[in-house]
Amino acid sequence: MSKKNVLILGGEGYLGHPIKLNLSSQEDKFDVMSLDNYFKDKIAVESESECLNPIRMRTRNDMGFKYNYRTEDITNYDSVKRIFKEFKPDIIIHLAEQPSGPYSLLGIDEAQKTVSNNLIGTLNILWAMRDYARDAHLIKFGTAGEYGESNVDIPEGWLEYEYKGRKDKRLFPRQAGSLYHTTKVLDTDLIWFFVRMYGLRVTDLMQGPVYGIYTDEITPKNIDELGTKFYYDDIFGTVVNRFVTQVVAGEPLTVYGKGGQTRGYINLRDVIQCINLIIDNPPDNGVLDIYNQITETFTVNQIAEKVVEAANDLGYHVKVKHLDNPRKEAEEHYYKMEHDKYRDLGLVSHFMTKEVLKDMIVWVEGFRDKIDKYKIKPRMTWG
Amino acid sequence: MSKKNVLILGGEGYLGHPIKLNLSSQEDKFDVMSLDNYFKDKIAVESESECLNPIRMRTRNDMGFKYNYRTEDITNYDSVKRIFKEFKPDIIIHLAEQPSGPYSLLGIDEAQKTVSNNLIGTLNILWAMRDYARDAHLIKFGTAGEYGESNVDIPEGWLEYEYKGRKDKRLFPRQAGSLYHTTKVLDTDLIWFFVRMYGLRVTDLMQGPVYGIYTDEITPKNIDELGTKFYYDDIFGTVVNRFVTQVVAGEPLTVYGKGGQTRGYINLRDVIQCINLIIDNPPDNGVLDIYNQITETFTVNQIAEKVVEAANDLGYHVKVKHLDNPRKEAEEHYYKMEHDKYRDLGLVSHFMTKEVLKDMIVWVEGFRDKIDKYKIKPRMTWG
Repeated sequence: MSKKNVLILGGEGYLGHPIKLNLSSQEDKFDVMSLDNYFKDKIAVESESECLNPIRMRTRNDMGFKYNYRTEDITNYDSVKRIFKEFKPDIIIHLAEQPSGPYSLLGIDEAQKTVSNNLIGTLNILWAMRDYARDAHLIKFGTAGEYGESNVDIPEGWLEYEYKGRKDKRLFPRQAGSLYHTTKVLDTDLIWFFVRMYGLRVTDLMQGPVYGIYTDEITPKNIDELGTKFYYDDIFGTVVNRFVTQVVAGEPLTVYGKGGQTRGYINLRDVIQCINLIIDNPPDNGVLDIYNQITETFTVNQIAEKVVEAANDLGYHVKVKHLDNPRKEAEEHYYKMEHDKYRDLGLVSHFMTKEVLKDMIVWVEGFRDKIDKYKIKPRMTWG
Repeated sequence: MSKKNVLILGGEGYLGHPIKLNLSSQEDKFDVMSLDNYFKDKIAVESESECLNPIRMRTRNDMGFKYNYRTEDITNYDSVKRIFKEFKPDIIIHLAEQPSGPYSLLGIDEAQKTVSNNLIGTLNILWAMRDYARDAHLIKFGTAGEYGESNVDIPEGWLEYEYKGRKDKRLFPRQAGSLYHTTKVLDTDLIWFFVRMYGLRVTDLMQGPVYGIYTDEITPKNIDELGTKFYYDDIFGTVVNRFVTQVVAGEPLTVYGKGGQTRGYINLRDVIQCINLIIDNPPDNGVLDIYNQITETFTVNQIAEKVVEAANDLGYHVKVKHLDNPRKEAEEHYYKMEHDKYRDLGLVSHFMTKEVLKDMIVWVEGFRDKIDKYKIKPRMTWG
């Protein structure tokens, strides 16, 4: 098998970095090129939402992982075109998006940046594939949030329906709960247009919130150098990260509203496993393949309970506090997301065990003095 | 009843201008403010697709129609905010979009302009409504093209469906045939997000291609001064305009492919009637009301036949020629679009009669020497 050129867009992010390390460690299979424009780092600083751990982007290459990296902005088509012509990607992993719901609704500037960064970036990738890489495999990170709180079970991307005695099959009608999540709905529509018109092949991953800090490449021994970014604030931090940080800060876990909000979650280790499975199972040209990338489903209250149990084991005494919900969302609702396709490909799931949460708490303890409690509480509302 | 402030975005365009004349002639009911940034005029010049008739934008106000107009770019939020605060619109009619499928696929610059103009413009309007006009009624021009070639009858916006024994109702899953049409799919999703989250009220009009040059306000007597723009080229001209112009130019009517492409059409007079009906029947806050704005359905071959008949009546001998289709689209397909809601509101349709087409041919004869045949033939392909 010849080596594949893998282009990772957003290769310095929470997910992009561990994926990059994993693929570049498979030197016989992949040549890896990572692009990033540090957009998220900039807006994190602007919104006072810096990550907890120091970022050592450029020096990571010293640890023996071989990949190329460049500072490029994919909203600039000239950059995208040049990279495509020079690097000739076989696989493109697209993570270069503004990923925060709260950020997308902070103000009109943030809203505009979210729409134009995410949509124009995706458009440029698709256009470059159309013109320079029609056989490349685009692996796009969507979000489980595209589906919203569906009252029917959520299929993997497609819905067959009947109306007045006739049948059709189209993308499942999605409606998301934030402007950011809505841009991902729009991304998928844009992708599906290019797949239909130009025979591109794309896998869209409807992924739930990811938790975890370790992978096969990022270990307790090297995490100081190789660790991925950890956000714990209300803008970029996921609920798991916020709770874990509140434990270490000696604060109660703050649940938004009733806490019945249900989502599918996935361990960082499984994200990497998924990417490898998807690379090995590309769709044909002209096919948009969609996976629901989650392994377990929890309410926010259940997550809080799990974090409390892990914290108790470590000697913490933690309380749970319900806040007025800064978001507009259902706090009790039906939620069932199908995710059989990965099982069929052989995914062996890593679940949200007490050990995983304890690992996170222990690691965050190393940054106890750096935690800014002000950042964890909701600083914005849906308006 | 107190007077309503009506803000028309894209008020100098093919549809915006006649709508503006009609509403501003109802002086007891409406105060009209028209905004335009002449974006379409600029890109028409850039793509060598100027309209057939001379544009007399600024002098039209002399004909006794009272409205305000300003040159503003709605992709600039500061402009939108200022207008909203000063003018306090009760009704916003949003036509300020790049409206051409072929243009949207000319090149990456045109593709980017289409996405950012249409999406950022719509986002700005929604954001300004959220912050300054939550009770205003947004009347948004969508397109019947959002639905694509559906294999089931096309309902007016919404689909009830069942999956594994449970039911839900969401926006009908749309998939369009050009990048432009896809941006309108995305617009509707963006609108629906803001309606759900902020209780806005919006009517989205899924309109088919419009034909016709006369209205109650634009008559054979004043059309030299008051006529609306007439595009006849492959980029901005509709199939009816292209055929009518080919008749006058002594050219065969050029049908793309087999000509079985079926769409719903509507007379310009009925568009104005529809707008008046929609103004009188606004949705409640928190409701997105969707209308399929067509009155008749034809294949391209049927349109050609109708134009040939009208031309014969005027002494022309016209041929029909099938070209390789520059677009990627089904040339024979099921198509049935529901449009009962307007009938229920009392719409009295004006159909595509021989007289209407003869009126168009006769008027175009006045510009025979200005017709550039090169512009009518397909100059671009879907790629």
